[in-house]
Amino acid sequence: MAEKTPVSTGLRGQSAGSTALCTVGKSGSGLTYRGYDIHDLAEHAGFEEVAYLLLKGKLPTQSELDAYVAKLRGLRDLPQPLKAVLEQIPADAHPMDVMRTGASMLGNLETEQSFDQQQEAADRLLAVLPSIICYWYRYSHDGVRIDTDVDDESIGGHFLHLLHGKPASELHAKVMNVSLILYAEHEFNASTFNARVCASTLSDIHSCVTGAIGTLRGPLHGGANEAAMAMIDEWQTPDEAERGILGMLERKEKIMGFGHAIYRESDPRNALIKQWSKKLAKDVGDTRLYPVSVRCEEVMWREKKLFCNADFFHASAYHFMGIPTKLFTPIFVCSRVTGWCAHVFEQREGNRIIRPSADYVGPEHQQWLPIEQRH
Amino acid sequence: MAEKTPVSTGLRGQSAGSTALCTVGKSGSGLTYRGYDIHDLAEHAGFEEVAYLLLKGKLPTQSELDAYVAKLRGLRDLPQPLKAVLEQIPADAHPMDVMRTGASMLGNLETEQSFDQQQEAADRLLAVLPSIICYWYRYSHDGVRIDTDVDDESIGGHFLHLLHGKPASELHAKVMNVSLILYAEHEFNASTFNARVCASTLSDIHSCVTGAIGTLRGPLHGGANEAAMAMIDEWQTPDEAERGILGMLERKEKIMGFGHAIYRESDPRNALIKQWSKKLAKDVGDTRLYPVSVRCEEVMWREKKLFCNADFFHASAYHFMGIPTKLFTPIFVCSRVTGWCAHVFEQREGNRIIRPSADYVGPEHQQWLPIEQRH
Repeated sequence: MAEKTPVSTGLRGQSAGSTALCTVGKSGSGLTYRGYDIHDLAEHAGFEEVAYLLLKGKLPTQSELDAYVAKLRGLRDLPQPLKAVLEQIPADAHPMDVMRTGASMLGNLETEQSFDQQQEAADRLLAVLPSIICYWYRYSHDGVRIDTDVDDESIGGHFLHLLHGKPASELHAKVMNVSLILYAEHEFNASTFNARVCASTLSDIHSCVTGAIGTLRGPLHGGANEAAMAMIDEWQTPDEAERGILGMLERKEKIMGFGHAIYRESDPRNALIKQWSKKLAKDVGDTRLYPVSVRCEEVMWREKKLFCNADFFHASAYHFMGIPTKLFTPIFVCSRVTGWCAHVFEQREGNRIIRPSADYVGPEHQQWLPIEQRH
Repeated sequence: MAEKTPVSTGLRGQSAGSTALCTVGKSGSGLTYRGYDIHDLAEHAGFEEVAYLLLKGKLPTQSELDAYVAKLRGLRDLPQPLKAVLEQIPADAHPMDVMRTGASMLGNLETEQSFDQQQEAADRLLAVLPSIICYWYRYSHDGVRIDTDVDDESIGGHFLHLLHGKPASELHAKVMNVSLILYAEHEFNASTFNARVCASTLSDIHSCVTGAIGTLRGPLHGGANEAAMAMIDEWQTPDEAERGILGMLERKEKIMGFGHAIYRESDPRNALIKQWSKKLAKDVGDTRLYPVSVRCEEVMWREKKLFCNADFFHASAYHFMGIPTKLFTPIFVCSRVTGWCAHVFEQREGNRIIRPSADYVGPEHQQWLPIEQRH
């Protein structure tokens, strides 16, 4: 056999199992969570309601939702050893490394001892991940030890409160809510699939989430809205943006925030976040980033028939709410933890260890050579 | 579409890419690393030599090996913030949670900033993982802060020195060496595949290794030698073991350490570790665990045609060297980190993001129902 370069097929188009959680890209552009259309969820639901749907399998009644929201509000405090760990992480660390380490440390302190505890463990992660990232951020950047156990209504409001040190406006809490819904679940994407591979050895849920955070960290997955922000922030006017995009296309540079591995016609999440970015732009009196973003969208469609994905207008929306760019992907974690945990539950129900085969392209049998005979 | 229970196919028999690193189970029982037979490696090589082969692609010359061993010896010290983190982890934590958190924390302190640094990062992990587990173990169990920067010749010797507080005997260092070679690499097993999924988003190597540790933690993957130890330790004589095994078979209980997902006839690693378990038994004057283990092997073959896999005689071998059972899987990490990192390098070379499809078995389109109308 001739040696070949090892390549990954990426399992594209190959089924790796079944799921009842999500459809992506049916008829080119659809997205549903347990059969509910993303448009309905983003318009009518709270993020906690969507988390309930994903983790418990149905939409809650009012009393069920009230109890769930109250429960999550009671799970925001950080154990002292976890605070001590976060205080050891320097200010210049990668925020996704902080999230990964925080989730992993939590597993030492509140270990999932049996699968009976999976719902408790998932709820705790959902409630405490904003505390983890904001505690580290404020301690390492501002030198303050914040109290994470504050009483905001929603998870999105809680995050903004911890970050800015004051309760979020109604508009900002609403936009965070929509954003967390849009990012919550997306079938067998790489980080979710990573979580399922881990779950398939019957490992604990903190291991699954820790691995998923590390996977989302990669620039081909979670980093697109940060890259989009860096790009649009370079331009002062829509015309400048148009020239910039055309130049990047000519130089065949990668432009983040456009196109998608699965969607063919459009990403349904784009229109949903775009309208909120527009409202925020008006709210803060922006006359630059939003028009620049709109022009990017027009040029990319005109030139390449590439549409904005979920990430592109998230960049300006987060920026308008005063969120530092390097915390964009950690917010993705605070949302997607619901999908990851729901997939872990599902994997455990119909489990078989995920152990694919590989095509061998290496050397044929090698004769052992004593070390003194090697060159 | 009728709703079905979601199930995982485990990707069994499906190729997920190609590799030049390893063949498993060719003609039923073979194992090669880059074309070299595991028998040759276990008999002639040092673990550091095998690590060099896996990570750098060829067997080293004497001077290359000397330089590599010396380099690894210089990378055993723990940064102060990592020690502080390990001191926060309680004595009753799961040792694999400690490994996972230690590897993740290292990523905050020594972040892989570009893929040019991958070899450095892999070498550092290889050298420092024994320090991580032993520092935590000795601090949490014995209340001592050990100096991990001791000058043992080999990685296996280093581990035993830190654990026992004195240099290992020649026999023990030799057995650790063989054990680390046997566990170093095994193609697309679940933890390695998990690392490759993470690598496919172009994430950093600490994320890949952290996720792999969490995946190895599962009882269907890394925990088999610990389970085997717990089982054989129940029995005082071979006859008692035989009655015990027959009872377990009758009750259809899972017996760990036998059979394999890929090997059909035998696991080539079994004979290699078994001979060392026998030597250790003689060395410590054991007349119980080794004969009990041999009888288990005979009965399982006679009754079920199931052979011992790599894990079964590792249990008694590790036990004879005074290693606490709960540290068995962390030793596996100290070895397999070589395979994981070699696979990460390979994934990066011919990368495509690993994003499989799923078969949807959930509910069809659901009409949104306002919360006050739900029951």
